[in-house]
Amino acid sequence: MTSAPGTGAQAPIDFYFDFISGYGYLASLRLEAIAACHGRRVDWHCMLLGVAVMKTMGLKPLLETPLKADYVLRDFARYQRRHGLALARNLTDPVMDPRPAARAFCWVKRHHAGREAEFAHALFDRYWRLGRDLSNIDELAALASPLGLDEPALREGVVGDESRGDLRAAVAASLERGVFGSPFLIVDGEPFWGSDRLEQLDEWLERGGW
Amino acid sequence: MTSAPGTGAQAPIDFYFDFISGYGYLASLRLEAIAACHGRRVDWHCMLLGVAVMKTMGLKPLLETPLKADYVLRDFARYQRRHGLALARNLTDPVMDPRPAARAFCWVKRHHAGREAEFAHALFDRYWRLGRDLSNIDELAALASPLGLDEPALREGVVGDESRGDLRAAVAASLERGVFGSPFLIVDGEPFWGSDRLEQLDEWLERGGW
Repeated sequence: MTSAPGTGAQAPIDFYFDFISGYGYLASLRLEAIAACHGRRVDWHCMLLGVAVMKTMGLKPLLETPLKADYVLRDFARYQRRHGLALARNLTDPVMDPRPAARAFCWVKRHHAGREAEFAHALFDRYWRLGRDLSNIDELAALASPLGLDEPALREGVVGDESRGDLRAAVAASLERGVFGSPFLIVDGEPFWGSDRLEQLDEWLERGGW
Repeated sequence: MTSAPGTGAQAPIDFYFDFISGYGYLASLRLEAIAACHGRRVDWHCMLLGVAVMKTMGLKPLLETPLKADYVLRDFARYQRRHGLALARNLTDPVMDPRPAARAFCWVKRHHAGREAEFAHALFDRYWRLGRDLSNIDELAALASPLGLDEPALREGVVGDESRGDLRAAVAASLERGVFGSPFLIVDGEPFWGSDRLEQLDEWLERGGW
């Protein structure tokens, strides 16, 4: 269970997320440390909750679901207190269109392969900790320079056909693998859904599955 | 956070469950041991997923939700392997009408107060581990004698108006407290939803909240 057959190398953990997902953000802060403890890398994949949850599963957004909405607000606040996080964004704030950020991620993944994790952290941080609206392309473009990326190229990449196609393909691939939430993790074919499963994922990696 | 104000005694953990809930069954097996570690008792409360999830929240049953269904089957099997459980019932088996079992529980809670936890364990065990259909009153009645309960009285209790009223009141009270799933735990006013939150509940009790 701990190695890809015939390679001796350990397969990376596939991490699926949507930038508008608060629980996805929480998982992004801890996942790599857990993976590293077990000699694993993390492969970052964007998905869209709007396609998976609303269109495919036919469910309402969490905060529009009676009873669950109150719980989620409380649970998210409790998690922040526990991990000492201070976020400018509230779950009840208007939700951005996640596609520009996701397309920017796809563009970096294609044109600066190996930098996409760093870029995803920057996107998550800007949206959740700083509370900025990344559907505004200026907010996305502001990330280029600090990360050493070419700003005009990033701007073009976000609106171009290539990143649109890459995002569509990424979303289709996520559904094909059964991904329906954020965070959603797959390790050696085994799926784990939700930020509250990081401990179980950790145990799974420790034991080599069961 | 660790004591009810002005009493010095620690408030019990409220445990809400539906007998048809596999995750509720899993939690029932571990909750009391966790509570006991922190000097807490458990108060058992039945609820009905059909009322909370389907009527109030407007959601589909888990196994009728695309994508999530496959995940839940896999997750439930993984949990069983991890905890060495062998259940005759599969999640995909036809689901019983939970009301007779819930009414029997209400009857025991009213007429044999203090025995309801033991009775709930027996109900859960008979449904999940043995795979019996507790909507059949003979299956319910078979539990009376081993637990030293009067079988004819239990049979009458299950079909009587009193237990019907008690169940309706229990369901209404659960919704009033924001309970929408099974298992659902409330400790010192703090809600925890899902069998995968038992570790967090444990930490909450250990720290006295945060």
